[in-house]
Amino acid sequence: MGYDPRDHKPLAWHDATPRFTGGGDTPRDYLERCLGVIGEREPGVLAWVTLNETGARSAADASTARWRDGSQLSAIDGMPIGIKDLLETLDMPTEQGCVAYRGDFPKRDNAAVAALRDAGAVILGKTVTTELGASEPGPTRNPFDPSRTPGGSSSGSAAAVAARMIPAAIGSQVGGSIIRPSSYCGNVALKPTQGAINRGERQSTSMSTHGVHAGCIEDMWQVAIEIAKRAGGDPGRMSLKGPDTAPPPRRPHTLAVLETEGWTALDARSRGAFESLLEQLAATGIRILRRADHAAIETLEQRLGSASAMANGITGWEGRWSLRALVANHPEGVSDRAKRRLVAAEAMTVADYEARLAERADAQAAHARIASLADAVIMLSSPGPAPVWAGDIPGQPINPRPTGDITFNAPSSALFAPAVTMPLLAVGGMPLGVQLMGQMGQDADITALARWMLAEVAPVVV
Amino acid sequence: MGYDPRDHKPLAWHDATPRFTGGGDTPRDYLERCLGVIGEREPGVLAWVTLNETGARSAADASTARWRDGSQLSAIDGMPIGIKDLLETLDMPTEQGCVAYRGDFPKRDNAAVAALRDAGAVILGKTVTTELGASEPGPTRNPFDPSRTPGGSSSGSAAAVAARMIPAAIGSQVGGSIIRPSSYCGNVALKPTQGAINRGERQSTSMSTHGVHAGCIEDMWQVAIEIAKRAGGDPGRMSLKGPDTAPPPRRPHTLAVLETEGWTALDARSRGAFESLLEQLAATGIRILRRADHAAIETLEQRLGSASAMANGITGWEGRWSLRALVANHPEGVSDRAKRRLVAAEAMTVADYEARLAERADAQAAHARIASLADAVIMLSSPGPAPVWAGDIPGQPINPRPTGDITFNAPSSALFAPAVTMPLLAVGGMPLGVQLMGQMGQDADITALARWMLAEVAPVVV
Repeated sequence: MGYDPRDHKPLAWHDATPRFTGGGDTPRDYLERCLGVIGEREPGVLAWVTLNETGARSAADASTARWRDGSQLSAIDGMPIGIKDLLETLDMPTEQGCVAYRGDFPKRDNAAVAALRDAGAVILGKTVTTELGASEPGPTRNPFDPSRTPGGSSSGSAAAVAARMIPAAIGSQVGGSIIRPSSYCGNVALKPTQGAINRGERQSTSMSTHGVHAGCIEDMWQVAIEIAKRAGGDPGRMSLKGPDTAPPPRRPHTLAVLETEGWTALDARSRGAFESLLEQLAATGIRILRRADHAAIETLEQRLGSASAMANGITGWEGRWSLRALVANHPEGVSDRAKRRLVAAEAMTVADYEARLAERADAQAAHARIASLADAVIMLSSPGPAPVWAGDIPGQPINPRPTGDITFNAPSSALFAPAVTMPLLAVGGMPLGVQLMGQMGQDADITALARWMLAEVAPVVV
Repeated sequence: MGYDPRDHKPLAWHDATPRFTGGGDTPRDYLERCLGVIGEREPGVLAWVTLNETGARSAADASTARWRDGSQLSAIDGMPIGIKDLLETLDMPTEQGCVAYRGDFPKRDNAAVAALRDAGAVILGKTVTTELGASEPGPTRNPFDPSRTPGGSSSGSAAAVAARMIPAAIGSQVGGSIIRPSSYCGNVALKPTQGAINRGERQSTSMSTHGVHAGCIEDMWQVAIEIAKRAGGDPGRMSLKGPDTAPPPRRPHTLAVLETEGWTALDARSRGAFESLLEQLAATGIRILRRADHAAIETLEQRLGSASAMANGITGWEGRWSLRALVANHPEGVSDRAKRRLVAAEAMTVADYEARLAERADAQAAHARIASLADAVIMLSSPGPAPVWAGDIPGQPINPRPTGDITFNAPSSALFAPAVTMPLLAVGGMPLGVQLMGQMGQDADITALARWMLAEVAPVVV
C-alpha cells in the first residue's frame, strides 16, 4: 500500500457532473463504480456500519433522471455520501459506535442529512464512528496501512473517502474528529466555524461541528455550502456563508504558525516535513510569522497551552448527563474508556466547568487579536502520521487515545474557528495533513487559501 | 371557586423545613399532605400525566432520615416537585403531550431533573404540557375556574402549584410557557436568563429556558439555585448566579413600563388593574418611566413590536427538522395545529430565519441600552386573565392559541432576559400576574425586587 501524495488520485465528483447532462455518464453509474470499490476495499478497511444499497440505487436513478432533464436539485445531486453514524438517518439505524445503541432507530434525519437529501445527494450508508464520538475505537483500518488507525472519531468517513469508495462524507468534530482522521487518511476536510452547519438535535455540547471529508477541495466546499443553504446554522447562529461553488484560489500574504501543545511531542521527521513546507512557502514570498515574531502570537500559544485538557473538560462536563444515564441503564453496553471519562466528569463542579469556559473565552480573545497579523494560521493537522493500533493489550493499562491525540485539533475546536486540512505531507509512506485556521466566519477565506496551496505547493515527502 | 390574592394561601416549603430537624414534621408527612390534596383536586384539575407515588414515598422516607440526622442534601431535600412532561425522567415516561410519543421512555433524567435528585428533591410526577410545548392543549383546567385554560405550555406545572398540590414545579418557556400559565394560575415563577439553567439534551431551540413555578418566591429561588449549583447552565453558558437562599427584598428606584404588542388588545379591566398598581408604586416614590418618557424605551417598544411573530418564526424554523420527521413517521399522532406550524416553517428559508435572528439581536441591543434607565422593566404577565376554553368547535376555524397569547411573554424570551411573575392582580375573580424583567444575568436582582413588591404592594382586585 503506502501513500505518496504525488501519485494518490482521490475520487472527485465535481469533474464528473458535466457528463451527466450529456448522458456520457450518470449518477447511477457513478454509484455503481463506488459500490465496486467498496466491494474490493471494504473487507480490509471496514469503514461502514450500514450500507443502504437499495435506497442509494433508487436515489441515484431519480438523480439520473433529473440530470437528464436538466432539473437537478443542486451541484451535488446524485453524489454518494457517507454519514458518520453519530448522525440520525431516517432509513438506517444510528448506533453511535456504542453497544448500548445497537439497533437504535430514532427515525429522523439529522438536519444536515435532511438538507443533503433536499439537495439530491445519495445517502449511501453510515460510517464507523468511535464510541459516542470519543476515544473507544471502531474496527476501521487506515486505508494506507491496515496496522494503523484511520483516526477518530470520524474514522469511517475519513477511510471511505481515502479508499476512493465515495467522494465525500460527513463527520463531526468535538476535539479533533474531522481534521485528524482526514490528516491520517490524506483527505481534505472542513471543520467549519462553530455553529455554521446546523447540527439538528445534536446541540448538547458547546463545541462540536458537523464537517465534510472529501477527496478534493471543490467537493468539500460544495457539500458544505449545499447543506448550509438548506439547513442553515445551529439554532441562533449564522450559517456558513460563501460562494455557490468553491471560492477561487487566493495566495496568502502572511501566515502565522501555531506550534500548539502537540509540538514538543512531535517526531523529528514530521517536524522536518512541516518546516520544509514552511520554507517552500517562504520561498514564494509568503511571510511566515512565528511565536517569537509577535507577542500576540506568543500569547495565543500560551492561551492554548492546555487546549486539550480544556476541550476534554468542557466536553466531559457537557456530556455527563446523558453518559450517566447510559452507564446506569446499560453498564455492559459502554466501554471502560467511556466509564473513565464519566468518572472524571462527575468529579467536576460547575465552578470547574465555568473556569474552563473562561479559559476558552480568553483563548478566543487572544485569537481575535491576531486577526490583523496574518491571513490565517497554519499548523499541522495531527501529531505525526497515524499511529499503529492493534488493540489494547490484556494486563496493560488501556491506551487513552488509540485513534490519536487531539493536541493539534483542540485549538480550532476551542476557538470556534474554521479549519481546512490539506494532504500536503507524507511521512514514512503515510499521509500527514497541514491545516489552515481562520477567524470565526472565515470559512470561505481559508478555503480559498487552501485551494491555492493545493494547486501551487509541492507536497513534501520524507 | 374564584381567586382573591388577599385570601389565597399558596403552599410553601421553606417554612416547613425548620420542623423537619426537630421531628415535628417530616418530608414524608409533607408528601402525604400533598398526595391528599392531589386526591381531592386532581379529578377537577387534571394537572398530572404520571404520578410516581411509590418512588416519591421512598424518596421522601430517605429524605426524612437525612433531615433527622442533619445530613440533608440541600434546602429542598424532600421537596415534592412536578416535572413538565417535556423533560426526560429516568423513572417515568416522557410523552411531551403528543400522541406520537405515548409510552416513550428515553430512560434518562434531563440535566435539571438529575440535579434535583442530587439535591434530594422528590420527583413526584410528570405534569401536563401542551403538545410538544406548542399550542395544542392538554386536558388541564384552571384551578380557579374549570371552564378556563391554565395557560400553556407548562399547564400542569402551573395548575398543580396553584391547586396547592405541590410547592413547586418545573416548566419551560419558548414563547410564554412559564410566565403566562403562572400568571393565569396566581403563582410566582422565574423564567431565567437564556442558558442559566442547563436544559440537558433539549438544546435545539435558541430561545427556550427551564424555569420554576412556585407558591412563594423563597421556594422559587431555592429550587432554581439548587438546580443551577449542580447542573450549571446550558453548554457554553454561565449558570444562574446568586445567593444560597432567596435574595433579600430590595425596593426599586425606577421601573420602566413596557406595553408590548399585547397592550392594544388588552381588556379595560386588566389595563385598569395594572395602571392602578403602577399608581400605587408611584405613590411610594418609585419612578415610573414609560415609552413617552425616553426615546430608548420607545425604541425598545418598536423593536418588540412584532416579537411574537419573531419568536414563532425562530422557533418554528428551529423545530422543523424534528417535527418534519415526526409528522412523516406518525401522521396520526400529531395535531393539526402542529401540522400547520410545520407548513409555515417549511415555507421559510435560511435567509428568512437569519432575518429573524437579526431582528432579535436588534431588540436585544435596544434592551441593553435601557439598562441604566431603570432597575427593571415592569409589564403584565399575560394579556388579561385566563381565557375560557371549551375545545374547538367542529366546523369552525381552529383557535390558534387556546392556552392564551404570547404577546406579553415573547419579549423576555426573545431578549434572553430573566423575568419573574408576581400574583399581584385579580380581575373578575381570576389571577393576573405582573412581571419584572431584568437585563441578562440579573435573575437575582429582579428576584430581590419582586420579593419587595410581594411584601410591600397591596394586590389590586377589580
